[in-house]
Amino acid sequence: MRGVNGKVLFSSNPPRDLQPKEVLIKITHSGLCASDLAYLQYGCVLGHEGVGIVEEVGSEVTKLNVGDRVGGGYLRSSCGNCSYCISGQDILCYSRNIFGEGDFNNGTLGHHFIAQEGYVYPIPEEIPSEEAAPLQCAGSTVYSALIQYYKHGMRIGILGIGGLGHLAIQFANKLGAHVTVFSTTSSKEEEARQFGAHHFVVLGQEKEHIQQPIDLLLLTGSKTPDWNSFMEKEILARGASIVAIGFTGPLFEIPFMPTFFNGYNIVTNLVSSRRAHQGMLEFAARNNIHPVIEKFPFSNEGIAAGIEKLTSGKIRYRAVLVW
Amino acid sequence: MRGVNGKVLFSSNPPRDLQPKEVLIKITHSGLCASDLAYLQYGCVLGHEGVGIVEEVGSEVTKLNVGDRVGGGYLRSSCGNCSYCISGQDILCYSRNIFGEGDFNNGTLGHHFIAQEGYVYPIPEEIPSEEAAPLQCAGSTVYSALIQYYKHGMRIGILGIGGLGHLAIQFANKLGAHVTVFSTTSSKEEEARQFGAHHFVVLGQEKEHIQQPIDLLLLTGSKTPDWNSFMEKEILARGASIVAIGFTGPLFEIPFMPTFFNGYNIVTNLVSSRRAHQGMLEFAARNNIHPVIEKFPFSNEGIAAGIEKLTSGKIRYRAVLVW
Repeated sequence: MRGVNGKVLFSSNPPRDLQPKEVLIKITHSGLCASDLAYLQYGCVLGHEGVGIVEEVGSEVTKLNVGDRVGGGYLRSSCGNCSYCISGQDILCYSRNIFGEGDFNNGTLGHHFIAQEGYVYPIPEEIPSEEAAPLQCAGSTVYSALIQYYKHGMRIGILGIGGLGHLAIQFANKLGAHVTVFSTTSSKEEEARQFGAHHFVVLGQEKEHIQQPIDLLLLTGSKTPDWNSFMEKEILARGASIVAIGFTGPLFEIPFMPTFFNGYNIVTNLVSSRRAHQGMLEFAARNNIHPVIEKFPFSNEGIAAGIEKLTSGKIRYRAVLVW
Repeated sequence: MRGVNGKVLFSSNPPRDLQPKEVLIKITHSGLCASDLAYLQYGCVLGHEGVGIVEEVGSEVTKLNVGDRVGGGYLRSSCGNCSYCISGQDILCYSRNIFGEGDFNNGTLGHHFIAQEGYVYPIPEEIPSEEAAPLQCAGSTVYSALIQYYKHGMRIGILGIGGLGHLAIQFANKLGAHVTVFSTTSSKEEEARQFGAHHFVVLGQEKEHIQQPIDLLLLTGSKTPDWNSFMEKEILARGASIVAIGFTGPLFEIPFMPTFFNGYNIVTNLVSSRRAHQGMLEFAARNNIHPVIEKFPFSNEGIAAGIEKLTSGKIRYRAVLVW
């Protein structure tokens, strides 16, 4: 499926032979991510949260076999030899191939996805495929951000409860952290607590209702908080790190003086490198992380319905296309 | 000295008895920092880069003696017991007393400065007092930023060659880093190289003249670079950290997409905690760090001349008031 005149429609991928280290995956499930919609205009094949069954392996593939259940789709290849690749940061490799940066005729929103061995990951048997799909981007994004910046004892704040946020709450809770969720609406409190939030604060009421200042704040959606309020000592603890993992706008603006005098850091995380992705799947299986999904059929109508719910903010919490 | 009608003028400090853990220091030298000028309007006693001789000690002082040569002036006290204080981050203590935040009748720009024991630091004998003065804020600021964010093997970029920048070049070189200096003017190249720069690039010509991408960029002055240019792979390496240690304006603005996709982090450092300050003095003595100073007499005329050179950008590189 790719963008065609502003819609996502089936469009057959150009067939091609497998390279020696590639595998052909018959997609069974694929998550739908806001990033897909951002690339709709470029006409590339969409989808980077795929799960499926290996159907064919290239001549030099050694660790995957026909019939294996695997997932992946965001990081598609990297050089394997640069300073990033050899230090667990392959997502930053200058020769990386990631969704939307060049591999325009290959994506997980379709019948098949071609992956390089080592860039798709066996799914632990505890995780059903429909739940594994959203873990491939949303799950690995929040897990990677957390394992980079969370240190034991920190209090985590999560702003936004969507595809990323509802997983961030679960991972943060299972890492042992105290988790405060900030949301625009009180209607999500009960669910936030079910996901593992210890405290829930409606934005705009943070000064009255915060219990403990936050050491690590994840911005999981498009919203940034009112910095004038958050940069008081009750909300963001001095030395706190702020991670923007959702798209908050073309310019990230932050007031300099409170940032400087309180020692805040603004840090980033792009989906995840391979080691973190593997670790995320192991962690999710062991700790009963469960994406909450809505399923849609893999058809033009199905995807249109998924997009409609996603863009209107009504999806709870990740759309998954299912064959 | 304090701000009086927009000028810095002598104004006798209200005399007061020493508290049991305080010492009275007869100031011999004090650096003049742009931060002093920022607080001129509040009428507080200025100065936070003082060096002098202990003249009197409170009844409970145990580690300083009359006659000791010490320096300090930015961080004046902290609680000693909070999570920040007991983890080497006392500069972030919520009960901290720092220059400009409350201690309005005490500063190093004058005859005497009252300090709490433990918040002024013996000066190693290798360092002359006139050079020790600018190390108390400018030196500890750049050293603290470097030891927090520099990891061996990183290439350091330093934007700006002023009070902070000319020291950052020296410390970075002596930490063993490859140092690239960015400046608005080619006239500073020779001096930058004498301070320890391995490469020198005039801003606006970075794409043509950069040799190796930067992993850690220190913004030491009021200037931010042209992010559209710096966020190309030739200039800032993916995963690079950007530290703003000079005041770059009320709002820090950075383009989100290149920051996110290249994994940049915007991090901060406020002068320094006590352990870093001590370490800086030891490091500077052992590694022959030499602030370049211009001396001015400790008088209304002397300070006016120093301020004039500082604000016109002509100071090379730190004004020091001398009794």
